[in-house]
Amino acid sequence: MDTYDFSSSRALFERAGRVIPGGIYGHYGLAMITPETPLYFSKAEGSHFVDVDGNRFIDYMCAYGPSILGYNHPVVDAAAREQVNRGNTVTLSSPVMVELAEKLVELITIADWAFFAKNGGDVTNLATLVARAATGRKKILKINGGYHGVAPWMQEPESGGTVDEDFANIISIDWNSTSQLEQAISDHKGLIAGFISSPYHHPVFQDNVLPEEGYWAAVEKLCRREGIVLIVDDVRAGFRIDLRGSNEFFGFKPDLICLGKALANGYPISALVGTDALREAVQGVFCTGTMYFGSAPMAAALANITELMKNDAAALINQTGRKLADGLTKVAADNGFDLKVSGPYSMPYLRITNDDDMTLHFDWIARCVERGAYFLPYHNHFISAAHTDADIEETLGIANDAFQSMKQ
Amino acid sequence: MDTYDFSSSRALFERAGRVIPGGIYGHYGLAMITPETPLYFSKAEGSHFVDVDGNRFIDYMCAYGPSILGYNHPVVDAAAREQVNRGNTVTLSSPVMVELAEKLVELITIADWAFFAKNGGDVTNLATLVARAATGRKKILKINGGYHGVAPWMQEPESGGTVDEDFANIISIDWNSTSQLEQAISDHKGLIAGFISSPYHHPVFQDNVLPEEGYWAAVEKLCRREGIVLIVDDVRAGFRIDLRGSNEFFGFKPDLICLGKALANGYPISALVGTDALREAVQGVFCTGTMYFGSAPMAAALANITELMKNDAAALINQTGRKLADGLTKVAADNGFDLKVSGPYSMPYLRITNDDDMTLHFDWIARCVERGAYFLPYHNHFISAAHTDADIEETLGIANDAFQSMKQ
Repeated sequence: MDTYDFSSSRALFERAGRVIPGGIYGHYGLAMITPETPLYFSKAEGSHFVDVDGNRFIDYMCAYGPSILGYNHPVVDAAAREQVNRGNTVTLSSPVMVELAEKLVELITIADWAFFAKNGGDVTNLATLVARAATGRKKILKINGGYHGVAPWMQEPESGGTVDEDFANIISIDWNSTSQLEQAISDHKGLIAGFISSPYHHPVFQDNVLPEEGYWAAVEKLCRREGIVLIVDDVRAGFRIDLRGSNEFFGFKPDLICLGKALANGYPISALVGTDALREAVQGVFCTGTMYFGSAPMAAALANITELMKNDAAALINQTGRKLADGLTKVAADNGFDLKVSGPYSMPYLRITNDDDMTLHFDWIARCVERGAYFLPYHNHFISAAHTDADIEETLGIANDAFQSMKQ
Repeated sequence: MDTYDFSSSRALFERAGRVIPGGIYGHYGLAMITPETPLYFSKAEGSHFVDVDGNRFIDYMCAYGPSILGYNHPVVDAAAREQVNRGNTVTLSSPVMVELAEKLVELITIADWAFFAKNGGDVTNLATLVARAATGRKKILKINGGYHGVAPWMQEPESGGTVDEDFANIISIDWNSTSQLEQAISDHKGLIAGFISSPYHHPVFQDNVLPEEGYWAAVEKLCRREGIVLIVDDVRAGFRIDLRGSNEFFGFKPDLICLGKALANGYPISALVGTDALREAVQGVFCTGTMYFGSAPMAAALANITELMKNDAAALINQTGRKLADGLTKVAADNGFDLKVSGPYSMPYLRITNDDDMTLHFDWIARCVERGAYFLPYHNHFISAAHTDADIEETLGIANDAFQSMKQ
């Protein structure tokens, strides 16, 4: 199998470096940890993108989540385009904002209301302010290694530009530990406003971990008893586990759910949804942004959700993900490697366990990428409804060829 | 002149109230301070929008800034649409991100690089982190009544959901006061990382205030002497005073400029631009968002800036604004009222000075609104390049009729 050349990406990156700090920043910049990798796309469609060198990839990152129906979905794009023609960001709200809120309240089991912003981090931050406004307490409890965006309090202490005071009210505990949760509650009795966590643990550079049996039931019970607002950060997992909220799959009811990424199939919008008990608290927090009222992303979200509901997309995506996981594990075993797949099938985290320092794993991923299957070595992946059985078959061929080349 | 009926807006707002806390929130919610006002648009075009009751308005808010070429500008919309067809938010960056950064570096005098986000508040917050990372200091100096977004530190102490620690490193001084600036520097010697301010003072519910002669030169000198990073929040004023940065008009050079609102004529994107001296500091701050890499808003920004440059839009918009200000002032005087217009002509803040509590002013604005000129009684306005002499003439007729009706 021929491997790809990335010289046009590299040339454009060099040009970028002159006018953009680091050339590519944030989570897109982190992907450059793999030295030979595509950096710029020229065309995306369905489950694929083509880079500026003309290389075609089956994409298992889906823009880090947004592409859930597949890139350039005609129904979603048409809805956005029609709304742009009516007017996108205008001095007044659009009726589609009301329709979208109604749709989310209909779909998301716990939702009595919805609030719209742009990025997931906008609404995870808002959720903590709502928890504080509702309880009159200061402390926020979070999970070690959990990711909720880039507001200073969400970062690791001593991250560039942060100050001690950003972390003064943040308590971090380990995932799946009810004993640490009980300890934190007892150490900070009556002071904890909210507990924020993703529905399962999806850190980077580590296997992903599902909740242990009984974990969420215990968390829910403790939060209720202590009057702690229970916040699920479903930005990353939302719509890929259960359309009604990932909590439904895991059998518990939070007070607030943060949604983003897959909400509008690539158009920029996020949402906080919650229960009636917190309606007044949201109204007491001042949260806004010039772009929050853009109506084209709202129309896209409405069309996206309607399509997802029509096609039972979460189930479909998990079936496809299962075929990928089973197939890759078998291909690895056939080549003498042990591939561990963690997290839900719709968002698989991959790791070759045959060495301790991830060298083999990084090597295998790089070989898959330069053969046309876009994986990342340190991050969970995302399957979309556009990924076909043919994509999976092709990917397994690429994976096999990558393993074969490692043995040479 | 017949006045408008807003019953469809009211009906939709009632429906919204069931699924959105407060029905309409944030700065859009604040506009409901005027009891009889349109709440939802059905169509926007150029300098106008039509509400859901079918009422047509000449719009002097321009979506609170974004609409600078006018709503639904064909060139900008075509650029966004073409980029959507290539792929909007994809796993990789788009080449248009590099082109846009190059364009901003070409246009904005102080800019050696650009960093893209979504809302203005994303980049004002990033600017403070960059200032801290660059200086190793904690304190941020800001102006009383200045608005930089909704991150907790930017809010007023005791705002819903905020905590004391959010304000531990914030120092506020009055606008136009070099003596207070000197005092703050002396009180916190060597501790101030950055000074953030809009290029002129545009608070709400108050006359806007331009910088006094020599103010910015003195600020710049003090910041340089003390190693304080000088940050201009040009989110609101950007492209409406001077395309090269509003600071150019006022004759000074900041280290960082925050842009948003009018950057892409209504598509969601903001930018931090800065000098080479801060390039490394930006790279040391982790800032990202799933939606930051959406390429359609970048293509829209590139097309928008190209159009703005081609038409010398800032000059044009200021000329139009001057006609409006002169005309409104005369119409007011002819009716026995004194109308004060403050701020630049492109972003006029209006106030009838004939009473002390703004009752007359709110009444007059409400009467203009229900006759088809959309003003806000407590906020600066925004003129776009789509506002014509005919719009101004029509507005003056509406203003006159509103004054006449007040005397009855």
